[in-house]
Amino acid sequence: MSSIKLTSLNPRFSDVQYAVRGELAIKAEKYVVQLKEHPNDHGLPFDKVVFTNIGNPQQRGLDQEPITFPRQVAALTEWPALAEKVKGLGVFPDDVVERARELEKEIGSIGAYSQSQGASFIRKNVAKFIEERDGYPASADNIFLTGGASAGVSLMISMLISSPKSGLLIPIPQYPLYTASLTQHGGLAIPYYLDESSAWSTSPQSVRAALEKARNEGIEPKALVVINPGNPTGSVLTKEVILELIDLAEKNNLVILADEVYQANIHHPTAQFTSFKKLVREANSPVPLVSFHSISKGVTGECGRRGGYFECTNFPEDVLALIYKMISVGLCPPLGGQIGVDCMVRPPKPGSPSYPLWKKETDATHKALAERTKLIAERLNALPGVSCVDSPGALYLFPRIYFTKKAVEKAKEAGKTPDTFYALALLDETGICVVPGDGFGQVEGQNHYRLTCLCAGVEEYVGKLEKFHRGFMAKYAD
Amino acid sequence: MSSIKLTSLNPRFSDVQYAVRGELAIKAEKYVVQLKEHPNDHGLPFDKVVFTNIGNPQQRGLDQEPITFPRQVAALTEWPALAEKVKGLGVFPDDVVERARELEKEIGSIGAYSQSQGASFIRKNVAKFIEERDGYPASADNIFLTGGASAGVSLMISMLISSPKSGLLIPIPQYPLYTASLTQHGGLAIPYYLDESSAWSTSPQSVRAALEKARNEGIEPKALVVINPGNPTGSVLTKEVILELIDLAEKNNLVILADEVYQANIHHPTAQFTSFKKLVREANSPVPLVSFHSISKGVTGECGRRGGYFECTNFPEDVLALIYKMISVGLCPPLGGQIGVDCMVRPPKPGSPSYPLWKKETDATHKALAERTKLIAERLNALPGVSCVDSPGALYLFPRIYFTKKAVEKAKEAGKTPDTFYALALLDETGICVVPGDGFGQVEGQNHYRLTCLCAGVEEYVGKLEKFHRGFMAKYAD
Repeated sequence: MSSIKLTSLNPRFSDVQYAVRGELAIKAEKYVVQLKEHPNDHGLPFDKVVFTNIGNPQQRGLDQEPITFPRQVAALTEWPALAEKVKGLGVFPDDVVERARELEKEIGSIGAYSQSQGASFIRKNVAKFIEERDGYPASADNIFLTGGASAGVSLMISMLISSPKSGLLIPIPQYPLYTASLTQHGGLAIPYYLDESSAWSTSPQSVRAALEKARNEGIEPKALVVINPGNPTGSVLTKEVILELIDLAEKNNLVILADEVYQANIHHPTAQFTSFKKLVREANSPVPLVSFHSISKGVTGECGRRGGYFECTNFPEDVLALIYKMISVGLCPPLGGQIGVDCMVRPPKPGSPSYPLWKKETDATHKALAERTKLIAERLNALPGVSCVDSPGALYLFPRIYFTKKAVEKAKEAGKTPDTFYALALLDETGICVVPGDGFGQVEGQNHYRLTCLCAGVEEYVGKLEKFHRGFMAKYAD
Repeated sequence: MSSIKLTSLNPRFSDVQYAVRGELAIKAEKYVVQLKEHPNDHGLPFDKVVFTNIGNPQQRGLDQEPITFPRQVAALTEWPALAEKVKGLGVFPDDVVERARELEKEIGSIGAYSQSQGASFIRKNVAKFIEERDGYPASADNIFLTGGASAGVSLMISMLISSPKSGLLIPIPQYPLYTASLTQHGGLAIPYYLDESSAWSTSPQSVRAALEKARNEGIEPKALVVINPGNPTGSVLTKEVILELIDLAEKNNLVILADEVYQANIHHPTAQFTSFKKLVREANSPVPLVSFHSISKGVTGECGRRGGYFECTNFPEDVLALIYKMISVGLCPPLGGQIGVDCMVRPPKPGSPSYPLWKKETDATHKALAERTKLIAERLNALPGVSCVDSPGALYLFPRIYFTKKAVEKAKEAGKTPDTFYALALLDETGICVVPGDGFGQVEGQNHYRLTCLCAGVEEYVGKLEKFHRGFMAKYAD
């Protein structure tokens, strides 16, 4: 018998919950294997699984093609001799060849470790990108390249937890990385609720109330987590609310952790992304801020490369040195991801050979996402027992389902929450994989699910969702 | 004033030590900037910095070129349209084109997240590689692809620490990732000492003694860490010792964490790598084992891609599910690293178009490493006050220095350990960056340093080392 047992391991690990890749996703992956191994006699009522549980734009079966420019640059940095071999054949545009050569000159082989913080040349380019975005100075010394935003978020959370009473203010609903990391590292979530009735807006008053409640319970609040544009809600914070949150954090000695990975995903003409960094500078606030960004979202959607960065603002030198030491134990972020970051912050400029194709590709992705989000939200809102805020940003919708008493009872009998019960039935009948609302947190007694708006063949997809939903509601009518 | 302060952060973070990228490396990087910014008036007594502090074979200034096969495969997976564009031009060998096509068919876009555990196709190939190496079955279900070995080591250590009294048996000297992770996650190191007088061999008796001492101090031993071939020592464990360690771990309910990342780096004709997995199976032992491997070392040296895997043996299903859940919070390892793992475990076969070049390149790397290790060890041993075990494996030497009383006093005056004092002087005078022995642990009162044997221009390099050493010994003669 093996001497390793769950009961002898870190007890916090068992408590971690991460629904985005949880029960539903695991079952969906089993269906994929079943379909592949038995193409003609799989015995399932569907022929393909549609993974709308995770923002993974380039996943097979979805339709977002990679943007050509970063892939061409990547191909040349992988095998630098290639440029010479195809010289004069018009295989690579000149600006691609130039970019790859520049990266090689500055960084060296992508098979070597870079500085732990990420290659200094790329961090300087990130700083320029931030300066142009915000109109305020940025420094490469405050930027840490990471393997996707998650790695940085997890590190910052583990650093901020100084005792079992340390707490972080977390929006509800939230992306479950935050509560998962808090549980893993032994901290506490201080939930503040977003307002579904006003398009999932954030009310500084509700943050203040959560803060007070936590303090009364003996919790020491260390940081305020904000996700803007929101995940799973897609809501975009206004300048006014951001300024209020900065003021609140400053007055309460909180660090702000700003998850801004969807900053390029804005679908509504009226919505506009404003960074926390810009407004911290505008308000001349000393509040410590960490802003996270990623190449996994936006129009690049390069999830598999694992690239991203965080920028620390108002951090003293000794804390930056501590962060440097901790990331150095993990050596460095993947160079492929770092080069992806370079291409994200330095896309082709108008007039350059790669610009027209890059523009065409990125425009098409923005357009498709905006159209699909709108269409799915409209169709969901037309269904009985469903309401859905039309997201102005990010990649998701988070519809609310009003279940019948009978459905709630049946779910209880099956040992599931109503939204998990619903999501499992949806997967079993249609092959569509969504994530139940309880994975993100919601007001007690409410039910939601999150789906991405990345699906190819949106008409077919929504048709299946509608048919399933009507059948489910009829089956469990009170 | 910023409200984020060292004293308000996770107190364990401040205690973490990671010398490989510590004081020496940070100073060396500053010299690089100084040389670059002031090429003609840098005021330093050297023109380049030689980073022998870290096993980073493709680093600029060292001479290990990337192996062509994996880079060609990577270029095509980055931009799959490229294969068609250069078809018939002989740019890529046929087996490269085939491999890239197969990977794309099985995995899809490398811009998409894979399964959290790594692409199942690649895990199956890893299992076949292990089966061929050991002659015992392996299963893809027990294999977790990682972003380099370090990520897996850190995860397993954090999982095994169930209380502040949890301890891990660590060889001394060790690669400091182990003590750094233990400190970070709140566990205790139980040191067992390797025997320098018999070529850094591991004595099961000394492990037993360490275990007993720890138990007497109220520490609960959870796991035995072994590094084979050793880092920093380069020693290779014999079959007999491995079997004894397996028996010891089994009798004491320990998990074995076997760091086997240097398994392909064997320079002595008499030394042979035997995996713990093979001998666990041979002994029919139920001991839980985690074996780590990486693409960063061996002859690939692809540190920047961040690729590796660990295999769990004798792990129950529920613990595997726990590991799966924890890694899923970080989404997935970089696809570039995963593809690197595929190329490592499935190199070109004899008779395939890529084989001759691959063979030539890998042979040259093995040969250069063996020759340099031997040469540096011989020359170091010829120096006064130095003894150096000639490493049969890995990438390093770990010479011992016998300092004069005067040198020890001067170091003390400078507030440094003697080996740090020596290493700083070496860097300041020659630009050569090594890591002092106190970063790896050593018998109290002894002094060592670690250097890699990856340096280009080995004659020039050793000449500088010798000149510096003689000068240092003369300067501080008693």
